Amino acid sequence: MRLTIEREYFLKALTNSGHAIAPKNPIPVLSSFKLDLNERGLEVTGSNSEITVRSFVPYSKNGKTIISNAVPGSILIEANILTNLIRGLGGTTINLDIIDNAIANISDGHTSIKLTNCARAEEYSDIDLEPNGIELELPAEDLIELVSQTAYAASTKEQRPVMTAINLRAQDGVLKATTTDSARLARKAINIDSDVRFSTNIPAKSMVDVSKMIEGCDKVQMFVSSNKALFLFDGNVVSARLIPGDYVVSESAIPYAFNYQLQVNSNELLEAMSRISILSMDRESVVKLSMSEENVEVSVKSDRNGSGNEPILTFQYEGEPLSISFNSRFVIEAIRVLKAEDVVICFQAERRPFVVKSPKDESAIELITPMRNY
Amino acid sequence: MRLTIEREYFLKALTNSGHAIAPKNPIPVLSSFKLDLNERGLEVTGSNSEITVRSFVPYSKNGKTIISNAVPGSILIEANILTNLIRGLGGTTINLDIIDNAIANISDGHTSIKLTNCARAEEYSDIDLEPNGIELELPAEDLIELVSQTAYAASTKEQRPVMTAINLRAQDGVLKATTTDSARLARKAINIDSDVRFSTNIPAKSMVDVSKMIEGCDKVQMFVSSNKALFLFDGNVVSARLIPGDYVVSESAIPYAFNYQLQVNSNELLEAMSRISILSMDRESVVKLSMSEENVEVSVKSDRNGSGNEPILTFQYEGEPLSISFNSRFVIEAIRVLKAEDVVICFQAERRPFVVKSPKDESAIELITPMRNY
Repeated sequence: MRLTIEREYFLKALTNSGHAIAPKNPIPVLSSFKLDLNERGLEVTGSNSEITVRSFVPYSKNGKTIISNAVPGSILIEANILTNLIRGLGGTTINLDIIDNAIANISDGHTSIKLTNCARAEEYSDIDLEPNGIELELPAEDLIELVSQTAYAASTKEQRPVMTAINLRAQDGVLKATTTDSARLARKAINIDSDVRFSTNIPAKSMVDVSKMIEGCDKVQMFVSSNKALFLFDGNVVSARLIPGDYVVSESAIPYAFNYQLQVNSNELLEAMSRISILSMDRESVVKLSMSEENVEVSVKSDRNGSGNEPILTFQYEGEPLSISFNSRFVIEAIRVLKAEDVVICFQAERRPFVVKSPKDESAIELITPMRNY
Repeated sequence: MRLTIEREYFLKALTNSGHAIAPKNPIPVLSSFKLDLNERGLEVTGSNSEITVRSFVPYSKNGKTIISNAVPGSILIEANILTNLIRGLGGTTINLDIIDNAIANISDGHTSIKLTNCARAEEYSDIDLEPNGIELELPAEDLIELVSQTAYAASTKEQRPVMTAINLRAQDGVLKATTTDSARLARKAINIDSDVRFSTNIPAKSMVDVSKMIEGCDKVQMFVSSNKALFLFDGNVVSARLIPGDYVVSESAIPYAFNYQLQVNSNELLEAMSRISILSMDRESVVKLSMSEENVEVSVKSDRNGSGNEPILTFQYEGEPLSISFNSRFVIEAIRVLKAEDVVICFQAERRPFVVKSPKDESAIELITPMRNY
């Protein structure tokens, strides 16, 4: 196996497949990339028990040569060393020459590297990357937004594995992503140009990895089967293990009618909450929002340190006066992922879950359970 | 106690005194700042067992009012909370009002904070900040350079406490700073306008703290006594505990005559060593420098990963061909602190310590013990 490759494309492939390299994989061969140069181009595969990424670099793109001097073949090379070397080299093209299925000579014409602990590609695990199951094509930017507005609310606790997933449910031309850690729930819906129907639970971490890799792509093809979700984009393939179990979210738990509504500037509310929360720096930060048509104020009370309050100057509030307390981190994270200039918070009652959303876009909602008022 | 203070000056004082706040101090009162507003201005004191900082904010500076509405007094306030609050507030002036020696009301006119766990200043530890011993005045920038070119080579191991210090030795109008961790030695000498004579061991970490605080200052006054070193600048006082014990550096161990000399561009050598060292990422990175009048090359050999080499293109070398191996981190750190475009490396022989210095400035030298050639 031998090739000359544009460093930038090679590094992108290594970085993408690197998402699947676990820091300490119990299976030694999985600390390596599998490099496979065939008639289509170069494929770089990385894998762990959660996710497998096969990145693809074509021989040429838009008439520009990316790979030349090619002699097909395949090899296993230690992933972190290879990525760091290719990142560190100064040249724009890399020569890679594999000798005796064991030694990789790497050079950019200035620095010369000989890696002596490579292994035969046959030693690599056999991984299923065949597309099967239900197929769905999405604009990459839709999938990125679906993930960014939901993944943060998935549970990070392993006790209930299914809650570490993003539940994806397709039905009636709509794809809904839902996450919850029991104290809050995030939901994003997008229209799809398909009448497929499925419900599947993909680890939130895997979806975040996918969303990073598809940045700048146009379309993503998804294949959902009973044991894996496959993502295809620009010749790359990502396979994510599914989390078994039912994802139970009662649709009736998501309120749609409200008695109180506050619209505020996102940054003003974020800054006020961040400042005020400094007082409770040692623990979950409970913030109280006190609202009337005349005044809106955020306040905090810490048994250990004292208390603080700050008025919100620019707001529109509709409803009777209301005070509601919550974990400020939940509201801060919800506002951040909405990326809207203003934010609307809709309340049912002091002790009932409330909804954070953008005033212009109802497709994403963040539902938060309040805490007891102090 | 009550005052209105420019936030920027207050925050600077808190940040400086914060250098002396240990994350978990066994003496509870030392997790607080002592604030003392007297006829001179505001003094903010922080302390731990290594270092005490008393920062000073005057009532006015260059005709500009910094503190107004002053009612003198003193109080203890939890250090991290206070610093984070003052950093987080949006206003340009801060009102601080102490009630009953226990409650601090803090406001910038928009956000209002009440800290309820303050304590009486009388509860604070009694700390000696009296200037005594030998006095020496230095330009702040000289002291900063003295520290930056030596502190990194001090030992970080606690087994031999004296080697975690910077040894400062004044004699014959010269102040020499020396650090060593046995494998390398850093030395910086500056001329002083004084005939004082002393030798003292100040923890390198304390000296780094001092060098950060004196940035932008003009002069620093030093007082060295048998148990502490005191630094005075712009009304601020820093007291550093000394490390007892003899700092043994044989002057004859520092070579001044050499048989080989290499001059190279600092960045080219740094980049080559950083790239090549990726191969030995798991352990101390031994790099070999092979020099002749025709070629200079850096190379590395790793039993685990393989080997690599890179030529240095721009160099001047004088001497017979020579190969020498060393811990690349030592040479990288030495080159970085010299901050010179080119660097000169002088060798005696393959197994003898070599010296890294700037071609234009002999006041700083970095002495490094080589390793066995592979």
